[in-house]
Amino acid sequence: GPVAAVVRELRCVCLDFTPGIHPKMISNLQVIAAGPQCPKVEVIAYLKKSQKEVCLDPTAPLIKKIVQRILDSGKQKN
Amino acid sequence: GPVAAVVRELRCVCLDFTPGIHPKMISNLQVIAAGPQCPKVEVIAYLKKSQKEVCLDPTAPLIKKIVQRILDSGKQKN
Repeated sequence: GPVAAVVRELRCVCLDFTPGIHPKMISNLQVIAAGPQCPKVEVIAYLKKSQKEVCLDPTAPLIKKIVQRILDSGKQKN
Repeated sequence: GPVAAVVRELRCVCLDFTPGIHPKMISNLQVIAAGPQCPKVEVIAYLKKSQKEVCLDPTAPLIKKIVQRILDSGKQKN
């Protein structure tokens, strides 16, 4: 279902993390800050091909690179 | 409406950017990669207090800091 609506549900969304996700596979990344609904940060990637939503480990250094790559990906285009 | 659903609409979501958004104000951040729906990366922040959705400038260095801060915010808690 729409990930944004998930934030209002009072529980964590991510039970396990999917490794090996490459920035190019991601069409949309959601970073949910720790808050009343869940004590830990949650990172949800919406995958282009499978259109599946998978959770990424926010503490993994790779995640920061993924976010940077997506943020920078706009640069080549404009 | 739910931001995730926006990705399927074939157009850019962000028309202008809201400056001065602090990581603590954000409950949920959405990074939409450049793609068929829109040639540029779009960063949408869902604000805790006002529950409004605002667009952030993906090219602004501050945005990277904001994303890092949110990603790191989980660390103090667990």
